[in-house]
Amino acid sequence: MKKAIWLIQDTTAEQLSEMKERAPEFELITVQDPQEMLAVVEIIYGWKKELTELISENKLPQLRWIQASSAGVDYLDLDLFQKHNITLTNGSGIHGIPIAESVFGMLLFYTRGIKKASEDQKDAMWEQVTRLIELQGKTIMIVGTGKIGFEVGRLAKAFGMETIGVNRSGRQVEYMDTVIRQTEITVELPKTDIVVNSLPLTDETNGFYNEKLFNQMKKHTLFINVGRGASVKTNDLIQAIKSNNIAFAGLDVFEEEPLASDSPLWKMPEVLITPHISGIAEHFKKRLGAIFLENLTAYIGKESLPKNVVDYSRSY
Amino acid sequence: MKKAIWLIQDTTAEQLSEMKERAPEFELITVQDPQEMLAVVEIIYGWKKELTELISENKLPQLRWIQASSAGVDYLDLDLFQKHNITLTNGSGIHGIPIAESVFGMLLFYTRGIKKASEDQKDAMWEQVTRLIELQGKTIMIVGTGKIGFEVGRLAKAFGMETIGVNRSGRQVEYMDTVIRQTEITVELPKTDIVVNSLPLTDETNGFYNEKLFNQMKKHTLFINVGRGASVKTNDLIQAIKSNNIAFAGLDVFEEEPLASDSPLWKMPEVLITPHISGIAEHFKKRLGAIFLENLTAYIGKESLPKNVVDYSRSY
Repeated sequence: MKKAIWLIQDTTAEQLSEMKERAPEFELITVQDPQEMLAVVEIIYGWKKELTELISENKLPQLRWIQASSAGVDYLDLDLFQKHNITLTNGSGIHGIPIAESVFGMLLFYTRGIKKASEDQKDAMWEQVTRLIELQGKTIMIVGTGKIGFEVGRLAKAFGMETIGVNRSGRQVEYMDTVIRQTEITVELPKTDIVVNSLPLTDETNGFYNEKLFNQMKKHTLFINVGRGASVKTNDLIQAIKSNNIAFAGLDVFEEEPLASDSPLWKMPEVLITPHISGIAEHFKKRLGAIFLENLTAYIGKESLPKNVVDYSRSY
Repeated sequence: MKKAIWLIQDTTAEQLSEMKERAPEFELITVQDPQEMLAVVEIIYGWKKELTELISENKLPQLRWIQASSAGVDYLDLDLFQKHNITLTNGSGIHGIPIAESVFGMLLFYTRGIKKASEDQKDAMWEQVTRLIELQGKTIMIVGTGKIGFEVGRLAKAFGMETIGVNRSGRQVEYMDTVIRQTEITVELPKTDIVVNSLPLTDETNGFYNEKLFNQMKKHTLFINVGRGASVKTNDLIQAIKSNNIAFAGLDVFEEEPLASDSPLWKMPEVLITPHISGIAEHFKKRLGAIFLENLTAYIGKESLPKNVVDYSRSY
């Protein structure tokens, strides 16, 4: 009986030969449309929209495992995968480093006067401010302590900041001075200078940042969203900016993407918009390949997959 | 015999009472023009231009010590101080943290696509780039390993970078993976992705970054100057940008300040200009006061000053 791995995600030549070596009984498919080979695909490396239909229509009857490339899997039909007995692993961990770098890029853009300076530069205007913020000594709340939150916390400690991690269980996480549960967040918000969202999008986190939450923040809080846009009620964020609870918002993700060209966010001087790019990893191919190869080795050995298995009961 | 400390630099109420306590035999002068009191001033906290004339004209005959606030002292007449037997201490160490934060703000502004995104934002343009740089794994050369260079090195290690320190003697410095002498710089430049200048301005470092040095850099080097403008030959830097040896230059200091409004630097898309603000410290008053008080205690006890004594033979 023929078996196949469908490589939708691009690989290096080295990764390809590594795959062949580890899974010699599998055929490797790299074409856009495998046609009659679909029937023997057992593993998919990567993702594309058309797969939802192929799975629903039972055109991938042997499919047992999908290795996705993103960390968030909110855009995938997890119920469908579960029904068809397909294991899903995600790309969590690939994006931690670049996203954490982007978080600090966004923060320092504001705190060190780079935002104003780069605007002044267009008019050849030399205008020295007299006050700038230092990150050192500030308190940062990191909401979501997965791989991204972990990296943000690690850098925050290097910058000499106090770190408050927020997660569902309140479990301790390295580099967090304190960890609290999501339900306790309002207690700590008034002590927090900076809030970074790196929550996955689930039913629980949809609209998590609403008017009530923004009202608990202290004046001039800096807010960064590198999680998912739908976790933030955009209109409530805009109000929080207008009332000075938020002094600066660095947003990489939005309720609707691309952000509509008539969104008021574009023109707000307190807002930096980056078009969902913070996760762009220079070493993406290398890191995703390493996750896939480690899982593949276990799969071939009939062991459970060691890396990034999505828990369908939690949706991430 | 009356003795006085002239406080040109602003202090907190707490610092003022601390000074009184530590130096009870000194009068504290806070006025702009102390007039006849000038004759009994032994210590000056802070600096203003008019002091050069007052010293030259021997109107401060008892002056023994000046605590300046800046780290660089190239704008002061050190020969005059030496002639009048005045000890100079500088503000080195105050600016290390904010400047290092600015260095990473400038770097990440470019590497994480914030520069392009903030420009696109003006036109409500959502345009995703496909490639961004990660600092992790890059090699950074830190030229000048004083307090600023030290802080840049410390953060660079937290970002997972390889660090090459450059100083006069080649002496080892914490957080530098390698340290080389200034004279050996051309050997290491071809391996370096990022060059940060934090050299003091002396006869030796004037025009240090010239055509020859820029030619040794590899293509697409990122260059940051938070030292002194005169260490860089501006025209040679512009040529290095045009020839792609420099992909991005973040400049906080310039040969001439304010930068002339017709300088070509303003309009170069590869250049970020900040108007000599990277050293603006949120906690400036607190940190400078701490240096002064530590020195003052030693001064009163007739011990040599422990903090930041400028070596006139080195000019810093």
